Amino acid sequence: MMSQMTPSERKVRVNLGDRSYDILIGPGLIAATGREIGARLKGRRVAVITDENVAPRYLDPMMASLAQSGIEAVSLVLPPGEKTKSFDHLIPVCDAILGARIERNDAVIALGGGVIGDLTGFAAGIVRRGSRFIQVPTSLLAQVDSSVGGKTGINSPHGKNLIGVFHQPDLVLADTDVLDTLSPREFRAGYAEVAKYGLIDKPAFFHWLEQNWQAVFAGGSARIEAIAASCQAKADVVAADERENGLRALLNFGHTFGHALEAATEYDSNRLVHGEGVAIGMVLAHEFSARMNLASPDDARRVEAHLKTVGLPTRMGDIPGGLPPAERLMDAIAQDKKVKGGKLTFILTRGVGQSFVADDVPASEVLNFLKEKHPQ
Amino acid sequence: MMSQMTPSERKVRVNLGDRSYDILIGPGLIAATGREIGARLKGRRVAVITDENVAPRYLDPMMASLAQSGIEAVSLVLPPGEKTKSFDHLIPVCDAILGARIERNDAVIALGGGVIGDLTGFAAGIVRRGSRFIQVPTSLLAQVDSSVGGKTGINSPHGKNLIGVFHQPDLVLADTDVLDTLSPREFRAGYAEVAKYGLIDKPAFFHWLEQNWQAVFAGGSARIEAIAASCQAKADVVAADERENGLRALLNFGHTFGHALEAATEYDSNRLVHGEGVAIGMVLAHEFSARMNLASPDDARRVEAHLKTVGLPTRMGDIPGGLPPAERLMDAIAQDKKVKGGKLTFILTRGVGQSFVADDVPASEVLNFLKEKHPQ
Ligand SMILES: NC(=O)c1ccc[n+]([C@@H]2O[C@H](COP(=O)([O-])OP(=O)(O)OC[C@H]3O[C@@H](n4cnc5c(N)ncnc54)[C@H](O)[C@@H]3O)[C@@H](O)[C@H]2O)c1
Ligand SMILES: NC(=O)c1ccc[n+]([C@@H]2O[C@H](COP(=O)([O-])OP(=O)(O)OC[C@H]3O[C@@H](n4cnc5c(N)ncnc54)[C@H](O)[C@@H]3O)[C@@H](O)[C@H]2O)c1
Ligand SMILES: [Zn+2]
Ligand SMILES: [Zn+2]
Repeated sequence: MMSQMTPSERKVRVNLGDRSYDILIGPGLIAATGREIGARLKGRRVAVITDENVAPRYLDPMMASLAQSGIEAVSLVLPPGEKTKSFDHLIPVCDAILGARIERNDAVIALGGGVIGDLTGFAAGIVRRGSRFIQVPTSLLAQVDSSVGGKTGINSPHGKNLIGVFHQPDLVLADTDVLDTLSPREFRAGYAEVAKYGLIDKPAFFHWLEQNWQAVFAGGSARIEAIAASCQAKADVVAADERENGLRALLNFGHTFGHALEAATEYDSNRLVHGEGVAIGMVLAHEFSARMNLASPDDARRVEAHLKTVGLPTRMGDIPGGLPPAERLMDAIAQDKKVKGGKLTFILTRGVGQSFVADDVPASEVLNFLKEKHPQ
Repeated sequence: MMSQMTPSERKVRVNLGDRSYDILIGPGLIAATGREIGARLKGRRVAVITDENVAPRYLDPMMASLAQSGIEAVSLVLPPGEKTKSFDHLIPVCDAILGARIERNDAVIALGGGVIGDLTGFAAGIVRRGSRFIQVPTSLLAQVDSSVGGKTGINSPHGKNLIGVFHQPDLVLADTDVLDTLSPREFRAGYAEVAKYGLIDKPAFFHWLEQNWQAVFAGGSARIEAIAASCQAKADVVAADERENGLRALLNFGHTFGHALEAATEYDSNRLVHGEGVAIGMVLAHEFSARMNLASPDDARRVEAHLKTVGLPTRMGDIPGGLPPAERLMDAIAQDKKVKGGKLTFILTRGVGQSFVADDVPASEVLNFLKEKHPQ
């Protein structure tokens, strides 16, 4: 049977030559996995990797859909959480894929959030030096960010995402219904990345979000629109700069501060999850840009107001449990971004939707700014 | 200081667009590591991975050469042998690279045979989603085959080389002096791969080897010529078909039978090493081609005579300890090459230097042939 879109479904194409692929966004896509994969894949075997939160809700419907289309599937359920992005779990995932005899025309499916997507994509990228890979992202963050663009990997004791490969998926199926079971906090965290696309270079989209965020949170067509717009924004950047030699760095807007805060809270998701760090980081990036006389402080206030309205933390003081001194945060930033002659590469902004890469930001200015924002 | 070649040194270029690189072949190159790397690398930091057989002989001279050129180096010495190509050793290698703070302009160096090259190349391919990588192959097999072409990886309980990435080196330094300390058996095994290039499509080279093999074994300029010709042959194939979508498959001439024999002897290197399996496999490929009326049996006899003269095994009966029945060998072949409708893809030949890919070889013919060659 051929692939067919329901009226509310949206399709975004990632243009990467012979590695181009579709992102389908809409309701009920998990139950259509078999149909969509069957229409695109020559092989008839898949291995599904998922986690313990997602499996009880969505694994059975997916397996049933695959079976209905005559696709043989095995599954592996992993513990949820960032710690799963490690060699300890990569090894059994590779084993499961090989054990299922997944070959050239078959595929590996990631059913879950960014953790499952990054880990499974990495395994697919190294089994037989690259196997077909399908992303079925189930968190908002994964649907608008991590499932698109081919960055895969695991963490090392030396830092996050330090081990991995670029391996593009062959298809992304973003079932917008499944977001209903995501915790409100995780939904908000994903929303920070949605807002990010507006702040990078789409002021009209940010404005639209300010007007329509409640509809996005509620579900339905506004949510689908927001996800499709985000995927389109990411797809455009990835098509222009797949390997992050330039432009793609803009996707890290707010992330330098955000990563430092994640490190400072020791990646304890009770205190801070990634999207929350990004929310605070984006406000800080606006404030720092204003301090450098690049942008108006009004823009910083506007961004903060919106993120606060949706329920995201926006200040370092919003993080429960206290933070180390500014100098320690600065160390984390210097680890993330190499400091050359006292200068840092940083993504700054001239206002909402006007971000840019600055490669000569004085480290001393950043430190002074952090001390001001976070006095001991 | 600029890179400079001694009169006896040869250079082969692997043309892969912006991933092109040089293979330098000649005496004394280990002592020139610092000079050659210093001339090519922007960074000033390297991590050297090697094994316990190679380290006592060549690690100190390499470290001294690096130090002399102002390049900071750390090293990691692993146990020798095929078992080292595993996740168990990959993890500490990744750790060592990250611990040494190898970044964008720095490099990872593999100093050893194919085991160290494949493992280290894989680690370099996944640390920071791809780090610079330099091959310093010390076995003949590694100099003429595994160090060139970018295939990297480790073994899985499910089979050899099943986990890995394509990751091209930035430079290959083949010091031909170090082959003097290689065991004669390992030298012969590597020689099987040298002869392979003649058998694939270079009849004049095979003829030259028949005349000059003693000089190749003795060392000096004939050895350098043979290695350079082999690297050139592999470089040409890799440039034409980097990811093995077609032509590159020819490099597996003799390997389908060879891999089945390696599996049948449980990868016990006391009984059979890879190059020995390839030697027997190439004779079998010629004999099978003759049996299919594609080639003259004289060619099979000629190939066997030469490989036997240099001291390589050429018949299944040469393997100590006995082999499982033909049916079990056939199972191993069917695992290696997928059987479709009773047909196998196989590299056959019309005679010395006239190999080709056949995708319709009846599995039943292969089985009958094996039964004849290896009656129980
Ligand atoms: N590859 C990239 O380009 C990229 C980009 C951004 C982030 N990331 C990575 O993504 C990861 C974060 O992704 P995430 O926020 O999705 O984390 P996650 O995968 O841990 O998911 C968050 C939580 O939600 C649960 N969950 C997921 N879908 C659910 C659903 N539909 N219903 C109920 N529960 C559900 C998960 O089990 C988990 O507990 C990080 O590791 C980050 O490094 C990668
Ligand atoms: N990547 C590729 O394209 C490719 C191609 C062919 C083979 N391979 C792989 O290469 C491996 C075989 O390579 P290999 O034959 O070099 O095996 P190896 O690395 O195990 O080396 C053979 C032995 O010789 C020792 N040795 C190496 N150099 C020495 C020297 N100069 N002096 C003394 N001892 C030395 C090693 O310690 C080892 O004991 C296999 O794992 C095979 O899968 C890869
Ligand atoms: Zn992010
Ligand atoms: Zn070989």
